[in-house]
Order: sequence, then structure tokens, then C-alpha cells
Amino acid sequence: MQSVKNRLYQVIYETDTPAGKLFDILLIILILLSIVVVMVESDDTLPPAINKAMVVMEWCLTGLFTIEYFLRIVIIDRPRKYIFSFFGIIDLLAILPTYLGLIIGGTQMLIVVRALRLVRVFRVLKLTRYVKEASVLWLALLSSRNKISVFLFVVLIIVTIMGTVMYIVENPHNEGFKSIPQSVYWAIVTLTTVGYGDIAPVTVLGKFLAGFIMITGYAIIAVPTGIVTSQLVNESRRQPGSRVCPDCLKEGHDYEAAFCKHCGHPLK
Amino acid sequence: MQSVKNRLYQVIYETDTPAGKLFDILLIILILLSIVVVMVESDDTLPPAINKAMVVMEWCLTGLFTIEYFLRIVIIDRPRKYIFSFFGIIDLLAILPTYLGLIIGGTQMLIVVRALRLVRVFRVLKLTRYVKEASVLWLALLSSRNKISVFLFVVLIIVTIMGTVMYIVENPHNEGFKSIPQSVYWAIVTLTTVGYGDIAPVTVLGKFLAGFIMITGYAIIAVPTGIVTSQLVNESRRQPGSRVCPDCLKEGHDYEAAFCKHCGHPLK
Amino acid sequence: MQSVKNRLYQVIYETDTPAGKLFDILLIILILLSIVVVMVESDDTLPPAINKAMVVMEWCLTGLFTIEYFLRIVIIDRPRKYIFSFFGIIDLLAILPTYLGLIIGGTQMLIVVRALRLVRVFRVLKLTRYVKEASVLWLALLSSRNKISVFLFVVLIIVTIMGTVMYIVENPHNEGFKSIPQSVYWAIVTLTTVGYGDIAPVTVLGKFLAGFIMITGYAIIAVPTGIVTSQLVNESRRQPGSRVCPDCLKEGHDYEAAFCKHCGHPLK
Amino acid sequence: MQSVKNRLYQVIYETDTPAGKLFDILLIILILLSIVVVMVESDDTLPPAINKAMVVMEWCLTGLFTIEYFLRIVIIDRPRKYIFSFFGIIDLLAILPTYLGLIIGGTQMLIVVRALRLVRVFRVLKLTRYVKEASVLWLALLSSRNKISVFLFVVLIIVTIMGTVMYIVENPHNEGFKSIPQSVYWAIVTLTTVGYGDIAPVTVLGKFLAGFIMITGYAIIAVPTGIVTSQLVNESRRQPGSRVCPDCLKEGHDYEAAFCKHCGHPLK
Repeated sequence: MQSVKNRLYQVIYETDTPAGKLFDILLIILILLSIVVVMVESDDTLPPAINKAMVVMEWCLTGLFTIEYFLRIVIIDRPRKYIFSFFGIIDLLAILPTYLGLIIGGTQMLIVVRALRLVRVFRVLKLTRYVKEASVLWLALLSSRNKISVFLFVVLIIVTIMGTVMYIVENPHNEGFKSIPQSVYWAIVTLTTVGYGDIAPVTVLGKFLAGFIMITGYAIIAVPTGIVTSQLVNESRRQPGSRVCPDCLKEGHDYEAAFCKHCGHPLK
Repeated sequence: MQSVKNRLYQVIYETDTPAGKLFDILLIILILLSIVVVMVESDDTLPPAINKAMVVMEWCLTGLFTIEYFLRIVIIDRPRKYIFSFFGIIDLLAILPTYLGLIIGGTQMLIVVRALRLVRVFRVLKLTRYVKEASVLWLALLSSRNKISVFLFVVLIIVTIMGTVMYIVENPHNEGFKSIPQSVYWAIVTLTTVGYGDIAPVTVLGKFLAGFIMITGYAIIAVPTGIVTSQLVNESRRQPGSRVCPDCLKEGHDYEAAFCKHCGHPLK
Repeated sequence: MQSVKNRLYQVIYETDTPAGKLFDILLIILILLSIVVVMVESDDTLPPAINKAMVVMEWCLTGLFTIEYFLRIVIIDRPRKYIFSFFGIIDLLAILPTYLGLIIGGTQMLIVVRALRLVRVFRVLKLTRYVKEASVLWLALLSSRNKISVFLFVVLIIVTIMGTVMYIVENPHNEGFKSIPQSVYWAIVTLTTVGYGDIAPVTVLGKFLAGFIMITGYAIIAVPTGIVTSQLVNESRRQPGSRVCPDCLKEGHDYEAAFCKHCGHPLK
Repeated sequence: MQSVKNRLYQVIYETDTPAGKLFDILLIILILLSIVVVMVESDDTLPPAINKAMVVMEWCLTGLFTIEYFLRIVIIDRPRKYIFSFFGIIDLLAILPTYLGLIIGGTQMLIVVRALRLVRVFRVLKLTRYVKEASVLWLALLSSRNKISVFLFVVLIIVTIMGTVMYIVENPHNEGFKSIPQSVYWAIVTLTTVGYGDIAPVTVLGKFLAGFIMITGYAIIAVPTGIVTSQLVNESRRQPGSRVCPDCLKEGHDYEAAFCKHCGHPLK
């Protein structure tokens, strides 16, 4: 019994063994398949036969995910810790909506919960060489979160004030700017250079101000980029330099360095 | 009496005490609420009952802001300095429009002044850990303002000349390019990659030139980004110099520095 | 006979001789011409006379490319290696579609294959001073491919979940969001700040969420830029190490290095 | 006579004297005014009175510029050198179109030449503190021109091939993709994230491919940014380090450094 549990643990939780790798790849395929099912199901124009097939497929996938979920609980030593972990909750959310749909009917909110399944792919990726890269990016974002907050708040102030100004300028001549929130929405669409075109200024002054917002948006996109980049540059600068010369105790040696560049002493 | 004044000073002007923090949070909520009121009020399609409620709310908020404004003047030692400071004027502008609306009627310009209330949030943020981040960003922008001016001027020249060329190419076949200012507006919309689509070239030559402008815009966005980023990278490179000279106590030394660059004393 | 082969080899494969340079420039012109032919041919609105001229031109160019292809095979010492090399296959694909069109009729797929001819320009550029620049860029992209993969996957998750949420919010009021894949397409259009405007939110909540996605997209564009930039900065930092160790003759030493990091010999 | 010439030389060609500064500011105002005249004149919807006023103004400005042009020739020692210099030609082009308009009638091309007047502003800026900033940016662009060429060529190949593929996918269902050049135009609009929306894919496969192009464009914008940024970072790193310690001859001292950080010797 114990050996079966051990074997399953290796397959489900570990990734180094061939069986574990196979399991991970299978799981990714099933997850992506279940996302495709969610998407296709939402299309009303498809013939009912396809829709029926999607429902059947959804139940099969939910069945497999349910088995996987209970296996994960059974074979782990501390199930409580798994159940309340981030991925434990995501795993539960991956199967709950289908069962809930039986009881309370297929409400719309359940579809979003089903789309969350995509996050499960991260569990598999988590265990590979992507961890380091992801954590470098995450750290860079984390350590620049204050700067980014300040930036986002300034952006918010700009779009609120510019939106109000444009409301006053355009409102009498343009149905698109029918209220301030609508004008602020337009200002966001413009500042971020998305530019749908469903709302666009028609007065000369409005166009002049719009041009001003565009160039502002074009220039200040430099700020978040600068924040993240300088963070990443600093991080990558610090990384190689963790080796210390045993003789002069200076840091900053390259990966491939064999001798201290300051005193010429061999590095370990 | 003096102790009441002192107590109020701590609540209103300081942020370290629990009461001061509570006051700040309350103030932010009221400011955001007043912005919401301005926005909702501008929507003509809402039932009159909601509009009436907004007017009442506006008067309550203005009342509270007025009390706050006079308290700020009363409890500070040098009221004149506060009144003519940046935030003193912003505080006054936050209450004036509502009163002015009584006298001269609710002209449109007053709405913009009311939207300026959002800037008051900065006063609260000013006193927290965001100061340092904001000042780093501000310094980076400030020290690259000449470079950014040059860049913006080049952008202006490009859009003027490209707008004129497009006017000549497209005008006979396309109502959108009805005058040069309009064409310059289109060139800004295109170069900044906003792309509303309300004006778009229709001739083959026009499309060819438009493609050229787009790729130009796509490439030269690298310039402001490069400017700000290199500034931030340099700034952050200077930061780690938290080493202090044991003789002159000045900071800002590079990693590899062996002697103080200010007084020449050996660094530890 | 051998001298003719040698002479041809120098003209076709080498670029240092005047004849080789001329051949390369001629080849680039012919390739670009053949791309123009493909493009013009696709325009149905042109008079049949032009279309006929294009067909004739296409055959002339194919003839020249065929001669070039066989010359390349004949004059090289190991033809098999050339035929199965990347550019050997591209060269074959440049002539095949026209002949295949005779047999199986001008199917659409053949046009794409003909457009691939543009890649042949790279062969010529390959042999010039652009090699170093291209390889620096390529290396930077290659060494940051894991980070970029993580980023793209996060983008994919964001657009899937935001697309699903927007489908639920907008679907009852907006024909544009008729299915989840369509909503995901909209989310991509918005997050990347393309913003066609063929699909745009109409509900208040939808516009609010859209504004959120736009600002997200505006901020996270900083991430790929940061990745590539920090890679390029690091690479270029390593480049100036053109100082050569007088003992082991290895390069790549930092500015401040006093001793060779490979053999510990003092640097000049 | 000579003293008048000297005095005029100082006013027109130099910028350090108060009179020279005044002249420069006046010139900028006149140039901007003449651009405004060009723009207003192009608007057909304005009343004829305004149009007439613009024509009068144009002649006044041209008169002033003509006087300035001849003064510049007269007061300089080597007029030939000025006439054939970049700004000499620009100055001539600023006055020629108005006179040519008398002879050959107001053809459209002359408007573009008149818009070139904006470039004259650079002459004035050239003589101020912006020179250094502009030259840093210019150098950064210049030294990365090979990398940018490679990048632009790759972009060209991507849009050609993607445009051809989209032509085949969308042409039978979508009038927008009526020929390959049109599809390539769409690919440029999409890749650069401009996104007019005048042409947009309608088929499922077309939308899928479009999403792919968008994310590609979103990701590869990182490349030119990375190129320019790393160039600017390197340049700014090199700049402060130009001071050399007179004792140990090492470089890399900060602007404000008074003592060598390597040996502690006072810096000059």
C-alpha cells in the first residue's frame, strides 16, 4: 500500500522521473483542452451537436480532475496543508463549477471560475527551469511596486483632469463625451495609445488637447519601462558579483573568472 | 486652548500618530467621494432623484472641506505661509467652486476646478514612504528634461512635415485630410500609435507614407524610454554608495572607491 | 574548367571581390523585384495588361533564380551540404512555386511560399558588417527567451481571464462580445494597445474593466522591454573588455580589473 | 560701416549678447507664426476675409525672412560658405516658395517646402544648451544605426510574410484585404500597435493570426528600446569618467569628486 502511495507521489508531485514528466505533460494537455471546451461552449452560433459534445467532454475532464484532486489529498502526508495552499484552492476551483452548475444552474460567474483552470498550468511550470526567470521578474516588479504605484496614481490624476477638461470642451458638440466618466474612459483609451476610435474629439480645441494627451502618453510610457529596466539591470549586475576573493575580500567577479581581478589571487 | 490647538495640529498636519493616520485615511475617502460626485453629476441620463442627492452630497463635502480649511489656517503658527503654499491654494480651490456656483451659476469651468481636488490626495501621500520613490522618478525626469525637450521638438517637426505631405497626397481623395492642422492631428494620432481610425489614408501613396510614419513612431518611442531608463539606471547606480567617509561623513562613494572623493581620506 | 568554377565561386559565394559585391546587389534587386511582382499580381483591380506583364516577369525572374540555384550546386564542392542547408532550401522554395503552379494550378498557398523569397535577402546581408549587430540582438533575445516565455504565458493567462470576464459583462448588451474566443481576441487587441475599435465595450462596467486592462497593458509592456534592455546592457558591458591579458591573451576584462581573471597575470 | 556690420553680425549670428538673444526669440516667433499661416491657409472652410489676411501675412513674413537672408549673406565674411551650408539652403527654401507661387501658381508641393521653415527653429536651438543633449541622443542613434537597420529589416520581412498569409486567409471573406500590399499595410498598422480599424480581420483564423501578430509586435518593440537604452546607458557611463587622476592616471571619477577615489590624490 505504502509503495503504491510512494509511486503515485512521485508521479503526481515530482517532475524529475520520466513518469512524473509524462504526468505533467498530460495534465497541461488536459487543462488546455478544458479551456478550449469553455471557449467553444460560449459560442451560440455552433450547431447543437457540437455543444452537446462539449458538455460530455466537460464532464469527462471534470471527472479526471476530481480523481486527480482526491489522489493529491490522499497521497500527501499533510493533506490540510495542500488543501489550503494556493494551488490546492485553484485545483478545487477547477472542479467545483461543473458540480455547482448541476445544483444552481449554469450561471455566468461559473464560467470565469472555470477559466481560472489556466492558472493550474503554472503549477507544472513551477517545477521547471522557468522558476528562476519568473522569480527574477517577480522580484523586479516587487521591488519597484512603490515607484509603479506612484506612476499609476499620476496617470489616474492626469486622465481624471484631462477627461474633465475634454468633457467641457467636447460635450456640447459630441455625443461621445456625454459624461465625465465617459470622458475619463476616453482619456485612458488615448493616453495608453489604445485608441479604439468609438469616441474621438471633433472640435478643433478638442483635437488640440487630444494631441497633447497622446504625446504625453507617448512620452510617459518611458517611466514604467525605465523603472522595471533599471531594476532588472541592477539585479543582473548584482548576481555575478556574489563571489568574494579569499585574499582581498573584494566582490564583483564574473562567472568564468578564475583569478581575482583586483589582486590576482586564485578564486575558489 | 493651546493644548486643543496642539492636539488638532497633530491630527491634521502630522501622520505618525494613530489619530493623524485615521484623519488622512478619512480625508482620502472624502476626496475620492467628492470626485465620484463630480463624475456622477455630469451624467444627464440619470434620474433627477440621484442628481438631487449628488447636490446635497456636494454641499456636505464642501462643508467638511471648508471646516478643514479654516482649521488648517487657525491651528498653524504662520497661516500666511500655508495659505499661499501650493497645497494651501489647492485646498482653497477645492471649496471655492461650490460657493462660486451659487453666485455666478454652475459654469462649466468650475467642474474642472472641482476635479483638481484629486491633487489633494498627494498631500496625504506626500507624508508616507512614497516620497522617496516619487522624488527619484521626479529627479530622473528633471535631469533628462533637456533631452526630452529636444525629443518632443523633433516629434513636433516630424508630425508637421508629415502632416503637410499627407495633406497634399490625400486631400483631393479623402475628406478626413481637409486641412493641414487636421492632417497634423492625424500624424500625431498615428506616430504615437493611438490610431483612432476616424481619419485614415485611402490612396496607395498615402498608405505607403502612413506605413513609414508608423514604423518611425514605433522605432523612436525607444528614445524617450532610453532617456528615462539610462537616467534611472545611473541614479540607482549612485544610490548604493551609502558608504560614509569616516573623516568628512559625506556619502555617495562608488563600490570600488578606496578614498573619499570629497576629502581624500581613506574609506573603510 | 576549374578556373571558371573558381571564378564563379568567387562571384556567387564570396562578397569581398568587386564582382561578388555586384552580384549581391543585383541579387537583392531581383529579389525585391520578385516581391513587387507577387504583390502587384494579387491586385484584381489592375488592367489585364499589367497582370500579363507580371506573369512574364515572374517567369523571367524564376528563370534567373533557377540558373542561380543550379550554378550554386554545380560550383560548390559539397553540393549535398548546400542543398539541405537553411538557405539551400529557401533558394529551392524561391523557384518551386512557379513551376508547381503549372502543374497544380495557382493555388493560394504558393503565394506565401513566393513571399518567402524575401528571406533570401538575409543571405546577402549575412556576409556584411550587419552580422555582428544581428548576432548581438539574436544573443540578447536567445538568452532572455525563458523570461520572455514566462512573460508571454502570463499575458496569455491575463487575456484569457479578462476575456472571459468581459464576455460575461458585455455579452447581453453587445454583439461584439458574442463568444469567449471573440472576447479573448478583444482582450489581446486592447492589452497590446492596438485597439481596432471593431469591438468596444458599451456597458459602464465593461468600460471600467477595459480601462483597467489598458492601464495594465500600458504598464506591463515595461517587462519585455526591461528584459531585452538589461540583456543588451549586460552584453555591451562585457564587450568593452577588449583588453587582452599579456600572458594568456584572453579578452573580456572589466575596466577596473588589475589582474587577468583567467590566469591571474597583471594586466597592463 | 565696418562697425555696423560687426554689430549686425553679433545680433544675427551670435546668441550671447542680449540683442542676439532678443533676435533669436523674435525669429522663433516669426517662424512659428509663418507655420500657423501655412496651416490656417489650407483650411477651405474659413471665410475669405481670413484667407486674405493670411496671404497678406505670408507676404510680410516672407519680406522679413528675405531681408534676414540677404543680411546674413552681406555681413558674413565668406558668404559662399553660408549659402551652401545646410541652414543657408533651409533659409533660402523658407522664402523661395512664396515668390515661386507668383510665377508658377500656388502648386501643392510649395506648401511642403514652406512647412520646412520649422526646421529653422533648430538653428536657434543649435546655439543653446540643447546642443549637448541633442548630440548625445544623435550619437546614441548613430552608433546603433546598424542594429536598428537589422531590426527594421526583420520588421519588414515579418509584415510582408504575415500580410501575404492574411491576404490568403481573409481575402475571400473580407473586402479590406483586397490585395497583398493592402494586407501588408494592415500588418504594419497592427504590428506597430496603431490599429486604425479601417481594415480588421473577420474570420476566426484571421483573428487568431492577428492576435499572434499583435503579441509579436508588443514583444519586439522591446528590441529598438533595448538598443537605444543600452547605448545611452553606456554613453552616460563613459561621460563622467573622462577625468583622469594626475597621480595614478585612473579614470571614472564623478563630476563632483575632488579627490581620486583610487589613490586619494587631489583631482584637478
